[in-house]
Amino acid sequence: MRRPERQNFSMTRKREFPLAQVYGLLEPGPVVLVTTARAGRPNVMPMSWHTMMEFVPPLVGCVISNLNYTFETLRTTGECVINVPTAELTKKVVACGNTSGRSVDKFKTFGLTPTAASVVNAPLIAECHASLECKVVDRTLVNQYNFFVLEVVKAWIAPGRKRPRTIHHQGEGVFVIPGRTIKLPSPKTSLLAS
Amino acid sequence: MRRPERQNFSMTRKREFPLAQVYGLLEPGPVVLVTTARAGRPNVMPMSWHTMMEFVPPLVGCVISNLNYTFETLRTTGECVINVPTAELTKKVVACGNTSGRSVDKFKTFGLTPTAASVVNAPLIAECHASLECKVVDRTLVNQYNFFVLEVVKAWIAPGRKRPRTIHHQGEGVFVIPGRTIKLPSPKTSLLAS
Repeated sequence: MRRPERQNFSMTRKREFPLAQVYGLLEPGPVVLVTTARAGRPNVMPMSWHTMMEFVPPLVGCVISNLNYTFETLRTTGECVINVPTAELTKKVVACGNTSGRSVDKFKTFGLTPTAASVVNAPLIAECHASLECKVVDRTLVNQYNFFVLEVVKAWIAPGRKRPRTIHHQGEGVFVIPGRTIKLPSPKTSLLAS
Repeated sequence: MRRPERQNFSMTRKREFPLAQVYGLLEPGPVVLVTTARAGRPNVMPMSWHTMMEFVPPLVGCVISNLNYTFETLRTTGECVINVPTAELTKKVVACGNTSGRSVDKFKTFGLTPTAASVVNAPLIAECHASLECKVVDRTLVNQYNFFVLEVVKAWIAPGRKRPRTIHHQGEGVFVIPGRTIKLPSPKTSLLAS
């Protein structure tokens, strides 16, 4: 497995996750932490504006404001990792959103651990439940909407916990975590008809 | 307030909702019911692949498979309503996803009530917590990804309930509803930095 040269991150303890199941991680709308890296220096920002666009290969559309430091790095490198945090990380997630990678090393400041990805130079976050290595595959709507289309090229999941307590932003600092589960017969695909 | 001519729907009992707060309805990733209408005949389908793209005017990006009946209607009319259902409607939501508007009047079959929108010809759904009247404003990625950019031109909310029990699809018929709330200081904007 290739480890990009410029990384000084430690190894991940996550296990690989099937690309065809990635949609089940992102479709419920969790806040995610997007990591990027430039010249070996990692950065991280929270993001809620994302959607699945295809099952396999998994495509993710996302809006990253051009006011954010991450925007320029993502546009330059064409690579990022989408990390899915759980409720224990809520304070760190908000802290990452209230500071800028221009002036702060958020990994050090907030005690997050970068680990090496296998395909991209951006790091996984050890503390997150899942990590999706992504490459930018379509920039058509970047200029007008700051909208990137990403392909998930490798997916990782933490062993153990089955029902992650993801966090879902409702605006102005209010988050909800998943409650009761409802299981109903449904088609195999998540994008129902018709 | 203009009522489009071809509608035979009854009046909504919802109250108008500020466009600038729309993101708080969609950002947590609820399953929504998309209504369309052609020649006065309404249809409805569930959708989970959507993201906010702008605060004001609210822009929503969404993927609607070209296998769905809704796709053709949306492309032709350029109008739809995004309705946010709550947990009591879960069975109906799934039923709407397992049938096609080509052969079934889903409103009648599943006991959903169409009410008149004010700007578009597609109906609001009376039973849903919120309803967002939308117009297609960008079709650049429709051919390649079935991705529509919608502008929310009018938003409606049911009076009363403060914390709607939205449903969030996790794939293959498993849904979660919101549980515990976490409130933290956060910037005014929901798309955090940086």
